[in-house]
Amino acid sequence: MKVFHTINDLRNELKIHRKNEKSIGFVPTMGFLHEGHASLLEEARRNNDIVVLSIFVNPTQFGPNEDFDRYPRDFERDEKVALNAGVDCLFYPTVEEMYPNELKSTMKVTKRVDVLCGEKRPGHFDGVALVVTKLFNIVQPDQAYFGLKDAQQVAVIEGLVEDFNIPVKINPVPTIREEDGLAKSSRNVYLTDKERQEAPVLYKSLQKAVEDIKNGNLNPDQLQQNIISTIQSETSGTVDYVSIYSYPDLEPINKINGKVIIALAVKFSNARLIDNILISI
Amino acid sequence: MKVFHTINDLRNELKIHRKNEKSIGFVPTMGFLHEGHASLLEEARRNNDIVVLSIFVNPTQFGPNEDFDRYPRDFERDEKVALNAGVDCLFYPTVEEMYPNELKSTMKVTKRVDVLCGEKRPGHFDGVALVVTKLFNIVQPDQAYFGLKDAQQVAVIEGLVEDFNIPVKINPVPTIREEDGLAKSSRNVYLTDKERQEAPVLYKSLQKAVEDIKNGNLNPDQLQQNIISTIQSETSGTVDYVSIYSYPDLEPINKINGKVIIALAVKFSNARLIDNILISI
Repeated sequence: MKVFHTINDLRNELKIHRKNEKSIGFVPTMGFLHEGHASLLEEARRNNDIVVLSIFVNPTQFGPNEDFDRYPRDFERDEKVALNAGVDCLFYPTVEEMYPNELKSTMKVTKRVDVLCGEKRPGHFDGVALVVTKLFNIVQPDQAYFGLKDAQQVAVIEGLVEDFNIPVKINPVPTIREEDGLAKSSRNVYLTDKERQEAPVLYKSLQKAVEDIKNGNLNPDQLQQNIISTIQSETSGTVDYVSIYSYPDLEPINKINGKVIIALAVKFSNARLIDNILISI
Repeated sequence: MKVFHTINDLRNELKIHRKNEKSIGFVPTMGFLHEGHASLLEEARRNNDIVVLSIFVNPTQFGPNEDFDRYPRDFERDEKVALNAGVDCLFYPTVEEMYPNELKSTMKVTKRVDVLCGEKRPGHFDGVALVVTKLFNIVQPDQAYFGLKDAQQVAVIEGLVEDFNIPVKINPVPTIREEDGLAKSSRNVYLTDKERQEAPVLYKSLQKAVEDIKNGNLNPDQLQQNIISTIQSETSGTVDYVSIYSYPDLEPINKINGKVIIALAVKFSNARLIDNILISI
């Protein structure tokens, strides 16, 4: 595995691989890698000749009151995870390398952003769109991999690729879960023992909704209410939102139809957990 | 020369050329080609294995009160110009092909736009940035060619390439002129005989300013005033603007220093002419 700190060095390396007609799979991350990222890397490894991983905590996607400085970083551990996952090229640029000058233009994501977690993070997806576009132009991968844990991010990036004709195939990768169904997250360690025991209820309530849909309940309000009731009665968490939208457009729906996402966020004492499930009928 | 109407067909063709390690030069235009465009194509022809020309009147760069519908189109003539210039691939998509769905994101150009001609066309360069980004992603050229007649557009596109790490070399091509120095433009035919005789004064006044700068006059206000006086006394046109800015940042300057642009727009009875000159000291 080679580590690259500059855009030029990475480009020169990848130029050789492209010339040799190697396919390039790309996994962009902010580092502090966990099993979710590892599953993206495995997927990339299975389907490409060359796997590129980027680790870059992108300042432009953090709001003024968000924790850019406190975002966890552990490059040495990440390097080991990357090595184990069979990464060929690890791109680890500085902020100055990625943003050497004041920006003269920017991206504005206008759809799919004002709902779910995006609703509370104005401008967040503009920053994501900017850095993903930059990284795609730097790496020029054939395929890129994103986790469905953040299904809204996947929807935004798929929109971007469509709007700007970006020549990259986007592969959404299913959420990695604990054996009891809880979505893996670095934040799970902040749960108390009791909360950790309750937390699988989140995914179970989503699975129950899918079952209800398959059994003919196509009423989003009812399904939403059932999930909220289940979480309120079976956990000590506070529901932040439970939402049902069309996917990937993330538009409100009156009736379950086509592809939909059921997504939720629940606050526990020291951790806010998110999860979602996609269903097509 | 092959003509392509769909993104997929063009991409499939270019994929073969890329595989054969052919270099690709790209000239994006809105058609109604004149000698200025021909000079871009010549430059592309000289320096690339494959020359791609796009003809697309882009609706997103026209304001609500601008003349998208009335913009001149003559595909048959353009096709001949392209053939004569040695174009290999002519991309001629419909609006539906380029914008099949409602946009979910857009580009916002924040610098270099609120001056010169851009000042009166809010949003114009956002549309230019959008379509150029799309076309670059579709064609994936090694190099692209833009005329310095619209030096502000060149500055915006250079900014875009820098901000988004777009892997395309931008080549600004000098303005093509009549023998008497008048910048070639489709609009010159709208000049009366008398105006046509006066019009070379525009470029001469710019050349005079460059001469003055070389002789040590580094005061932008004085240089600007001299140009305005010359045009007012020697033509029947009305000065729209004469401006001096740093280039490509297009920031106001107190003293001529580094690379600067001197640009002007002058209204005649039926035509508004623009011209500019770049100088580095």
